[in-house]
Amino acid sequence: MLGRTYDGQNCSAARALELVGERWSLLIIRDALFRGMTRFSQFQRSLGVAPNVLATRLEGFVDAGLMTPRAYSTHPEHREYLLTKKGRDLQPVLLALTAWGDRWAAPDGPPVVLEHENCGGTVAPHTHCASCGPLPATASVRATPGSAIAAPS
Amino acid sequence: MLGRTYDGQNCSAARALELVGERWSLLIIRDALFRGMTRFSQFQRSLGVAPNVLATRLEGFVDAGLMTPRAYSTHPEHREYLLTKKGRDLQPVLLALTAWGDRWAAPDGPPVVLEHENCGGTVAPHTHCASCGPLPATASVRATPGSAIAAPS
Repeated sequence: MLGRTYDGQNCSAARALELVGERWSLLIIRDALFRGMTRFSQFQRSLGVAPNVLATRLEGFVDAGLMTPRAYSTHPEHREYLLTKKGRDLQPVLLALTAWGDRWAAPDGPPVVLEHENCGGTVAPHTHCASCGPLPATASVRATPGSAIAAPS
Repeated sequence: MLGRTYDGQNCSAARALELVGERWSLLIIRDALFRGMTRFSQFQRSLGVAPNVLATRLEGFVDAGLMTPRAYSTHPEHREYLLTKKGRDLQPVLLALTAWGDRWAAPDGPPVVLEHENCGGTVAPHTHCASCGPLPATASVRATPGSAIAAPS
């Protein structure tokens, strides 16, 4: 985790990136979300990441409440890592990154299609305005102070 | 840019992170998207990032086609950085990170509200299934081979 790297930033995107902005973090979450991986060896095989980095990321996710460990063998002791609701809730971030990469960095077409498990339908991120309804991804959006700023201190 | 860090990953999310996964990258894009920033000095003031890091990021965005430079002064020469369509199209990624941070890392409430410039409506990311319609953010989604994998080589 980046920890307090973005300490000066009063911004939810910055807070999110402090928890999942390190190299490999979002790809580990991707494998857990879309490929059902839970075990160190699975993530290692999928990513080819250095074991010490992977161990640091997984323990960081546990500390941040994104994953919860569960023992699946006691002799020797092995544990797997299950996404919590907080971790699963990162799915829209991965959907958005995947959609962008499909449009701008996949000259041969999408390497992967993300399907709703219940029905097999293709899943994609949409942008929605509370007043106008669906918006194009490039609609003009501006930041205004939220309740944490607007509230009297 | 991470460059070929994720070279073994045939995945659009990994390709996207190679372009915008470095520290500060997505916060620079955020400031350009939601706060209309274009100039080195604006990003610097907003982020407090080291000037050499900021310069490297901005030039990397130009190389990657996410921003295009434009001179706004010739004596001395100064240029600003404008998001391209490819860059603006990262908006759903920032919306998703912000929404997640608002839910899970903003105990005092959202520091910022993202509004549609045309109407002032609040903008948020939604997940959509082509068969079922709107899905909760934590619906079960699985990765299956896409056209780049399924196509005969």
